[in-house]
Amino acid sequence: MRNKPWAIDYLESNAHIVDVNNTYSKKIKTFFDKDQPIHIEVGTGMGIFITTLAQQNPEINYVGIEIDKNVMIRVTEKVLELGLSNVRLLLLDANTLMDYFNENEVDKVYLNFSDPWPKVRHAKRRLTHSRFLSSYKQLLKKDSIVEFKTDNRGLFEFSLISMNAFGMTFENLNLDVHDDEPKENIRTEYEEKFSQRGHKIYWIQASF
Amino acid sequence: MRNKPWAIDYLESNAHIVDVNNTYSKKIKTFFDKDQPIHIEVGTGMGIFITTLAQQNPEINYVGIEIDKNVMIRVTEKVLELGLSNVRLLLLDANTLMDYFNENEVDKVYLNFSDPWPKVRHAKRRLTHSRFLSSYKQLLKKDSIVEFKTDNRGLFEFSLISMNAFGMTFENLNLDVHDDEPKENIRTEYEEKFSQRGHKIYWIQASF
Repeated sequence: MRNKPWAIDYLESNAHIVDVNNTYSKKIKTFFDKDQPIHIEVGTGMGIFITTLAQQNPEINYVGIEIDKNVMIRVTEKVLELGLSNVRLLLLDANTLMDYFNENEVDKVYLNFSDPWPKVRHAKRRLTHSRFLSSYKQLLKKDSIVEFKTDNRGLFEFSLISMNAFGMTFENLNLDVHDDEPKENIRTEYEEKFSQRGHKIYWIQASF
Repeated sequence: MRNKPWAIDYLESNAHIVDVNNTYSKKIKTFFDKDQPIHIEVGTGMGIFITTLAQQNPEINYVGIEIDKNVMIRVTEKVLELGLSNVRLLLLDANTLMDYFNENEVDKVYLNFSDPWPKVRHAKRRLTHSRFLSSYKQLLKKDSIVEFKTDNRGLFEFSLISMNAFGMTFENLNLDVHDDEPKENIRTEYEEKFSQRGHKIYWIQASF
């Protein structure tokens, strides 16, 4: 994605949709029109997943978290285009999630095609590392679900081991989502691309 | 495998290798020449896996468990051919494992290409059902490993969920063993056949 020098200006001009300056930190509920359950996606990419879900589920408030301001422009455009009042966006490093949210504030966490960080020395940056699981556990309500999808085998293997070691319960699991694909599956941009290259798509729902 | 009316006669005539009548129940150690750690394979099939392992590791005693007497003939023939003194065979229904072994007697359990029992109403028959995990836990020493390999996606998904729910720890995991195959991998008859058909081979090492 090409760097857009005007990215922050653009995002700030849409401050009713995107929080760039942590304005809604610890009070995310007030950022939405309606007081409804909050589901978050950590790493929205282009935003197909979260905007599709938000259209399907107007009774849920969605928070899309993305660290890349250039990517965030695209998601903001989608939310504006679709006129979605139940999506708010957050330009944030996932490392600071717990400074932003309150405990037990969130009902579900989605992770889709997260950066695999394949080098062992970068394992701590993977969004299913115990460091992040610990954050999700804090911000999620009791018995809530983390739902994770990826085409990256190494990352999925790591994630199963990491979630298991953290004491999470595996609720559902699919090692080839596109074989007999569930009709509720939302294909992201990455998913479409890597599935066409013959990658299997892996998926898990796990709870704390 | 064709039924051989002479199967039991044949196995009984090799009573120094195969236990057909539970003669060594609760005293399996005395069935071997040397007192060494015991590893068991539940469901040997034709026996390529256990006989190969036994050749590689003379310092381990292997017990191959198989319920099918016709299949057991083949395994017995292999053990005789190779002159293996560290393999003993057991014609036994896995449901009765705990009646046969003592607690904390075994150092490792192998499961290879176990019957998937795909129908939900047969889930209890799967060798990674909690019913069986409970047996393995009893007969294994503390912190010992269950190692499981299959090409059956449904069975592997079930097994991950079942082992996780049982509180087992995932030590190692591979969702495509034949991609960059570890040199220590022993391909069983099934494995060769189903890998050629394009099936992924799944593998896990888990401890209690």
